[in-house]
Amino acid sequence: MRATTIHAPGDIRFEEVPDPVIEEPTDAIVKVVAGCICGSDLWPYRGANDIDAGSTIGHECVGVIEEVGSAVKDFKPGDFVIVPFCHCDNTCAHCVAGVQAACENLGFTASGQGEYSRVTQADGSLVKTDGMPDASLIPSLLTLSDVMATGWHAAVSAGVKPGGTTVVIGDGAVGLCGVLAAAQLGAERVVAMSRHEPRQAIARAFGATDIVAERGDEGGARIAELTKGVGADSVLECVGTDESMKTAFAIARPGSTVGFVGVPHGVELPVRRMFQKNVGLAGGMAGVRRYLPDLLERVLSGSIDPGKVFDLTLPMAQSAEGYRAMDERRAIKVLLQP
Amino acid sequence: MRATTIHAPGDIRFEEVPDPVIEEPTDAIVKVVAGCICGSDLWPYRGANDIDAGSTIGHECVGVIEEVGSAVKDFKPGDFVIVPFCHCDNTCAHCVAGVQAACENLGFTASGQGEYSRVTQADGSLVKTDGMPDASLIPSLLTLSDVMATGWHAAVSAGVKPGGTTVVIGDGAVGLCGVLAAAQLGAERVVAMSRHEPRQAIARAFGATDIVAERGDEGGARIAELTKGVGADSVLECVGTDESMKTAFAIARPGSTVGFVGVPHGVELPVRRMFQKNVGLAGGMAGVRRYLPDLLERVLSGSIDPGKVFDLTLPMAQSAEGYRAMDERRAIKVLLQP
Repeated sequence: MRATTIHAPGDIRFEEVPDPVIEEPTDAIVKVVAGCICGSDLWPYRGANDIDAGSTIGHECVGVIEEVGSAVKDFKPGDFVIVPFCHCDNTCAHCVAGVQAACENLGFTASGQGEYSRVTQADGSLVKTDGMPDASLIPSLLTLSDVMATGWHAAVSAGVKPGGTTVVIGDGAVGLCGVLAAAQLGAERVVAMSRHEPRQAIARAFGATDIVAERGDEGGARIAELTKGVGADSVLECVGTDESMKTAFAIARPGSTVGFVGVPHGVELPVRRMFQKNVGLAGGMAGVRRYLPDLLERVLSGSIDPGKVFDLTLPMAQSAEGYRAMDERRAIKVLLQP
Repeated sequence: MRATTIHAPGDIRFEEVPDPVIEEPTDAIVKVVAGCICGSDLWPYRGANDIDAGSTIGHECVGVIEEVGSAVKDFKPGDFVIVPFCHCDNTCAHCVAGVQAACENLGFTASGQGEYSRVTQADGSLVKTDGMPDASLIPSLLTLSDVMATGWHAAVSAGVKPGGTTVVIGDGAVGLCGVLAAAQLGAERVVAMSRHEPRQAIARAFGATDIVAERGDEGGARIAELTKGVGADSVLECVGTDESMKTAFAIARPGSTVGFVGVPHGVELPVRRMFQKNVGLAGGMAGVRRYLPDLLERVLSGSIDPGKVFDLTLPMAQSAEGYRAMDERRAIKVLLQP
């Protein structure tokens, strides 16, 4: 098959690689209908992560089951499925506790930007739709494989409840989905920290009531003003840098929780401040499967439309251009079609 | 008056200092009936914190109101009161949210190991008993000024719920009170990590079902064994060192929360592990006043007896010996009588 591969920082190719095959009886092979590029794919692209040269890249996709292993009971070829980026058996102690990201049989999508992708623990991981969904729904369904579920995880981890003020740090696709999640979970005021007009527009469409364009100390001062000096009732940290984490803890009200989903890079948590102000931290890698049935229902019923985060669609063969567009912030999130 | 002072690491004195006086109309002066030495007093004693030479030390006490400022309405001379180590107005946004440790009018007890102590925000901070309590209750009431409330805060922050396994790291008085709190809050299994037989005995009396004497990797292996590889449902970090924090995150099950109350010293939080395993951190300085009415009721009804943590009682004039005894771990916690 052909798939997107990474060879070095900045070196993305779309080329022939071996077809993924059923390796375990619990596996399934999915023919990708749509994949996309994640903000976290930019870490290796920018040289911040180690690269296994020539390996496939891409962990978000939806598609149609091509083949299933002998132990797969709930899916058959032809089913349209959402593929969580992290695969889980959905039966181990961690899955049962709602922490599918720590499944004892954890696996990951490895060629979501390719023509086919292998899913381990298919029965535990996948969720299917009734028949082939309308093409207009594909972008939103695709977000459920990671970005929307991750934004939702940030909001749940931060303890967003009806009423109150939620601040979302990060105006990438995850942050925007965090805005949508906070609004859906009933936050009265949802503040998106964003300097980019197109992203601000999506944030507003997703339910942001306020936009704060300032960063660092100035951003903190604006949040203090908006919250009458009390601080935010919940903060979603959707970036993963030390600066964004520091901002999160600076604006979170005492007793609140920072929900974090940005893969931490160079983060040193301000433990003294956390102690003195009683501000907690929760979150981490999103166990997508936990939220999938609920989010699917919300998409199918039209109550959320997270597919709006895609502002560029390219043929998969042009995935390198997709990376460039996201790296240069010309695109928020890029959808790739085989 | 005479009070305990610190002049340098290891240099504790009991000497004449100026009497505390009403400085604000919301102040009260309490004649100390009993004070005690906190594990956190050992930080400056051991040279780990800066010292203002000659300053009074000690933030835990109970006593009788000697004098009140003109704005104090709920207390009068003669009332027996528990003095939270951190004072609060109990009316600001943070107090109303249950985070009294972040009160806008935060104050601290400064001469709890002396004959008198000033309490700021007396109406918000203090809780009184009906009449003078029986002498046998004084030790338990004294623990409510900090140590028992702090152990309780650890358990609440860690999300201890009925059922499940709680592990308590630290067998100082706070950790022992954490054991008591976890048992009171219904943990089915309470594991005290302790190598010291007298502390193990108190832990068992407080409700520990298991004792783990091993530390570090070996301690982690024991907890893994006890929890069938899943990890602890909640972990109370009651020390504040990097080692104890690392242990806490090593044994906490994915999706759980480490409740921390040990003042962090040299702690570098394992943010990558927190992310990968979805283990959160919550807690910090305990807003004692939040828990005080409930804990007082539990002491008066005889359902808890946290005064057991005191295994040495000395005249206040011998406070220096009290510090030595705690520093050398000859005593768990020292009660001082004027």
